[in-house]
Amino acid sequence: MRSMFTQPIPTLRRDGDGIVILDQTLLPHRVETRRLETLEDVAHAIRGMQVRGAPLIGATAAYGVAIALLQDSRHPRLTHALEVLAATRPTAVNLNWALGRMAARLLPIAASARIEAAWDEAEQIRAGDAATCADIGRHGLALIEEIARRRNGRVRVMTHCNAGWLATLGEGTALAPVYAAHARGIPVHVWVSETRPRNQGLLTAWELREAGVPHTLIADNAAGIVMARGEVDIVITGADRVAANGDTANKVGTYLKALAAREHGVPFYIAAPRSTIDFGCPDAAGIPIEDRGDEEVCTAQGLAEDDGVRTLRLAPKGTSTANPAFDVTPARCITGIITERGICGPARLRDLFPTPAR
Amino acid sequence: MRSMFTQPIPTLRRDGDGIVILDQTLLPHRVETRRLETLEDVAHAIRGMQVRGAPLIGATAAYGVAIALLQDSRHPRLTHALEVLAATRPTAVNLNWALGRMAARLLPIAASARIEAAWDEAEQIRAGDAATCADIGRHGLALIEEIARRRNGRVRVMTHCNAGWLATLGEGTALAPVYAAHARGIPVHVWVSETRPRNQGLLTAWELREAGVPHTLIADNAAGIVMARGEVDIVITGADRVAANGDTANKVGTYLKALAAREHGVPFYIAAPRSTIDFGCPDAAGIPIEDRGDEEVCTAQGLAEDDGVRTLRLAPKGTSTANPAFDVTPARCITGIITERGICGPARLRDLFPTPAR
Repeated sequence: MRSMFTQPIPTLRRDGDGIVILDQTLLPHRVETRRLETLEDVAHAIRGMQVRGAPLIGATAAYGVAIALLQDSRHPRLTHALEVLAATRPTAVNLNWALGRMAARLLPIAASARIEAAWDEAEQIRAGDAATCADIGRHGLALIEEIARRRNGRVRVMTHCNAGWLATLGEGTALAPVYAAHARGIPVHVWVSETRPRNQGLLTAWELREAGVPHTLIADNAAGIVMARGEVDIVITGADRVAANGDTANKVGTYLKALAAREHGVPFYIAAPRSTIDFGCPDAAGIPIEDRGDEEVCTAQGLAEDDGVRTLRLAPKGTSTANPAFDVTPARCITGIITERGICGPARLRDLFPTPAR
Repeated sequence: MRSMFTQPIPTLRRDGDGIVILDQTLLPHRVETRRLETLEDVAHAIRGMQVRGAPLIGATAAYGVAIALLQDSRHPRLTHALEVLAATRPTAVNLNWALGRMAARLLPIAASARIEAAWDEAEQIRAGDAATCADIGRHGLALIEEIARRRNGRVRVMTHCNAGWLATLGEGTALAPVYAAHARGIPVHVWVSETRPRNQGLLTAWELREAGVPHTLIADNAAGIVMARGEVDIVITGADRVAANGDTANKVGTYLKALAAREHGVPFYIAAPRSTIDFGCPDAAGIPIEDRGDEEVCTAQGLAEDDGVRTLRLAPKGTSTANPAFDVTPARCITGIITERGICGPARLRDLFPTPAR
């Protein structure tokens, strides 16, 4: 019973000996694709957030391995590629998961067979994520349906950052239940937070607008008053890494929303595939939090009057900033985790995934 | 024992038959003043946030009455001016307080005496606020000194928005204790949140930089993780209206910080003068929350490469937004309120101010 969601523009597709990605640093102002043809292209695209979103980062890295092997499929090249790609971003564990799959498939086999196997494994990761998104959507839909039954009116979902189709190879994680509900004719409305400093909330607004889903953009600061006013029925966000105990790293600001949700009795859900769960990480203490540079905090990018994409300086050069890209929402603030295998409380992840998954 | 603080640039000063204000919509990029010569100039400056900050809004409106009376000091003109100015912004009660003072002073007297009395009353409000800031600084200093005694290292203060000298006629409210500590040689460090959508945090960063106070700029979203990491000793913010029970309206986002502070055992203080306390308002339900337009959320202002101050479009025109300019921090999340008469728990405001103050 999978939905027939097709990405309006593929976030990533194979194109001969390279891949074509949608350049997300230009959205929502420009829809442009980039062809990535070298390992360095791929590493640069991940580091610079041309591709972003935990599932998409993982799949892009997998294709990066295939691209790297085209130059030289011998062992040193393979391990080099794995190392370069693993070092691009630290928090989203999907990156390690995807590279782990590539290593497990490729390291044991002859160099001559690796290139074909690498493309095949990357394609499997891509297709697997699309299927996973559909399953997350199906399970999350039940939550929205249940609220719709109770409420006389539209179901008001709050999300953070972008965990829609742009973040994945399918229809998204946090937004998959929203799209599933919208497709069923259940009236939904989404509160979209800007998500400074990189404004990925604008990607969410763009996605929802294209899909015809009603939504309202707010400053990140406004999440508390919107919840205090009783205008949110459920919060659903994605994740970059879920520890074994359910502690969840996601885009910075998620934690503040979780605190406000708990205060106002709003259920708070994480939507994340198995590939985002790190059973090797007992709790939040083991999750590395990426610190990004001053420039993101000191600047803003947007469309100038001449329709050019420009960057403005908000704070002077040399302003001291801290720019943690993620924060941790402790398991105690999380109502449940929506996975491709169903929904569970944060402490029950092992029940859904009893064996080490590949 | 008042500090000798002098505003580096006066936020407001009388200049003959008008006033000169520092245009805060251009800061931190441009330091420009504007001369306001008519009632409409003054109303426009308050509405458009050329002057902002609850105490400064109140004083500016008081001068606006004097300016309006220069044209015609008869009764209809006076009540018209009071009405126009009262309608400029709804949340900061200092506006009503200052206009109430002007009305009480001017309505009973002959039209011929009103102009001089209006200037005099406005000057008294200005001077009174400067004295009030110094007293708030002195009382708040005790909190910082106490933390400094316990801690081996600098005292880490988090604030929100701008409640420094730019928001007042003196040294500020929330930042007054910081400046007092800095002047005493107590090492302080301030976490400054951007404060989208209007970025008044950049005003705070600018103030602190000019004053040589160490500080770090963060995205609003980062307040939770910074507190979770144990890097904040005290939160101090200003207020736009404090209800009789201690519920406090302040710049949107304050509430999220208060929730995070409570979660992590960080004391959370409001610094506010008597003029910000609305004893006529029993609790938060009576505080009107200003909703501002879509444009603030959909745009960002900054410095372009050619050094011009420009506005970029972040979200397309027509994007549906909600833009509450304030939120309410309930008294239960507030450790104490720092006033010119001392510090009290949010439920004890009447102990400090037992009689209706003028």
